[in-house]
Amino acid sequence: MGHALAAACTAADHPTTVWNRTPGRGADLDADVADTAAEATTASPLVLVCVRDYTVAQSILDVDALRGRTLVNLSGGAPREARALAAWAREHDIDYLDAVIMATPDAIGTPDAALFFSGPQDVYAKHQAVLTALGENGIYLGDDAGRAAGFDAALQDLFWTAMSGIVHTFALATAEGIKPADIAEHAKAMVGMFPDLIDQVADQVTTGRFPGDDAAITTAAAAMDHILDTVRSHDLDNGVLSAARAEVQQAIDAGHGSSGYARLATR
Amino acid sequence: MGHALAAACTAADHPTTVWNRTPGRGADLDADVADTAAEATTASPLVLVCVRDYTVAQSILDVDALRGRTLVNLSGGAPREARALAAWAREHDIDYLDAVIMATPDAIGTPDAALFFSGPQDVYAKHQAVLTALGENGIYLGDDAGRAAGFDAALQDLFWTAMSGIVHTFALATAEGIKPADIAEHAKAMVGMFPDLIDQVADQVTTGRFPGDDAAITTAAAAMDHILDTVRSHDLDNGVLSAARAEVQQAIDAGHGSSGYARLATR
Repeated sequence: MGHALAAACTAADHPTTVWNRTPGRGADLDADVADTAAEATTASPLVLVCVRDYTVAQSILDVDALRGRTLVNLSGGAPREARALAAWAREHDIDYLDAVIMATPDAIGTPDAALFFSGPQDVYAKHQAVLTALGENGIYLGDDAGRAAGFDAALQDLFWTAMSGIVHTFALATAEGIKPADIAEHAKAMVGMFPDLIDQVADQVTTGRFPGDDAAITTAAAAMDHILDTVRSHDLDNGVLSAARAEVQQAIDAGHGSSGYARLATR
Repeated sequence: MGHALAAACTAADHPTTVWNRTPGRGADLDADVADTAAEATTASPLVLVCVRDYTVAQSILDVDALRGRTLVNLSGGAPREARALAAWAREHDIDYLDAVIMATPDAIGTPDAALFFSGPQDVYAKHQAVLTALGENGIYLGDDAGRAAGFDAALQDLFWTAMSGIVHTFALATAEGIKPADIAEHAKAMVGMFPDLIDQVADQVTTGRFPGDDAAITTAAAAMDHILDTVRSHDLDNGVLSAARAEVQQAIDAGHGSSGYARLATR
């Protein structure tokens, strides 16, 4: 990912200096290669960091080299980590933006790459031209440094939960003797319903009213019991669906069985 | 749902006789109202049953009235229940189709309503005109009576797992101070990626090859740990995601960490 970010900078004719923890990486780029992180940091007014997580980022950040510059951290992490790093930066006279990359490396620098940014608006505005080189869909989310990571966590929550559902659907289909391509066709049609459902959940959470007309929580319970019955008959893992069923049961036990499913979004 | 199915039949000018367990229901329909299930059954060559589940269906089916007719069961249930009812029907000289309704009652009779059917192809062909009146997207899946319920279970598995992810995304966003409408916009963009991912999983399950290039199982583990860290920091329920994480760990412990996530679809 670091290589893709650097390539996008050089492709947009921004003078670029790179450093990697593994020496020799980036030699193929049209960029200067620094020997140390500090050397790479002092080479430019804008410093992009993209490593595995905030702990690794903190271990390579050189406070003296960074002072007076802008640091954009594109490493993944939790909102509280982003806020802590922003506080550290503020303390040391470093302008800080937190960033989240919503794209694969091969999309970086193309119109397909979406990136979230949060931190002081004037800092984002000052560097927007370079940041747009990373992906045209740069989205500034606000001055709370943790906001980009907050959006990321919420969206990744949906992504990985849905992915676990997708692979389990293929496991169950296979157990039922249904070919992957046959179930895929209908699964794709089904996910086409999700945008409207997402809007419906958003509306209900916003208004705090959860009509159960179409899909009450008790309906969800009955549907899940049907699926679990078949899942268990094939001795397939049922952990995810059982956990979803347990959340539904909690809502029923709390007296919300006739409310709509979106009520589970509120605690 | 029963009312919607009967209304679709009468709207297509098929002479229809209705019966409901609660007397008086269906009086508004342009249909004859029978006093008993047996009377409704003997009124027509094709008998549609739509109740809560197979147990209720079995309790109202009159074997003497059904003999020599075609029974289409639109009640929800497991593939093994559909196969058992098909075997019972065969034994008593009743033609049997199992059906699954992939639509809300207000879509029945419109081009939006999809229905799955399985059972003997000649029986489906014989009644296709009436069955198409229920929804233009009638899909015949094969002669195994359990096949429609199998498709249904696999697709509902995806639906309810994804729905649990959707509501949890709004719970996490709310905890992070993000407005429902703001996260909804990006969540809708994210589900736009699912059709391609579904095809990718289908291809990998079909070929049995799971390249980990883009998203290895270890990458999923790291992403889930990040999300769980934030979920736990807000004291939100983490059951579904923790269960998904446990499945990932099983795959890692079995030596598949560098494989692609789709490998979780195979056991």
